[in-house]
Amino acid sequence: MVIRGDNNKLIAFGPKVREIRKLQGLSQEKLAELSDTDRSYMGRIERGEKNVTLTKMYQIADALEINIVKLFKVSEE
Amino acid sequence: MVIRGDNNKLIAFGPKVREIRKLQGLSQEKLAELSDTDRSYMGRIERGEKNVTLTKMYQIADALEINIVKLFKVSEE
Repeated sequence: MVIRGDNNKLIAFGPKVREIRKLQGLSQEKLAELSDTDRSYMGRIERGEKNVTLTKMYQIADALEINIVKLFKVSEE
Repeated sequence: MVIRGDNNKLIAFGPKVREIRKLQGLSQEKLAELSDTDRSYMGRIERGEKNVTLTKMYQIADALEINIVKLFKVSEE
């Protein structure tokens, strides 16, 4: 997949959430529940379709029990 | 100042932006211009009053020419 520019950054965030969630063996439904996120909204976040807020990013990081900066690794490497 | 819990995380982000901006000798007005942000909105971001989006965070990081993860350092240390 070719991605570039600013879209790259947004597109990278969601798949990183998905990647870490799957590594932890969590279902999308469970992560949605743990992070107080609507399940369909979580799907859109993971697909890079939503411009998430700082608060939501922290809720997701906390639910995954990771440092929030790990959610930026894909786009920074 | 006593800050705690989730508020800590939101409150930490804005002052980190301000800290880095000042280290670079940029005015708030200039950073607002460079990051395509309304100046009064930039003031509220720096005061930790706004729940910024991922896109806005990248605009600010790009304007400061820093890796976005540096904007999380205060809250992670």
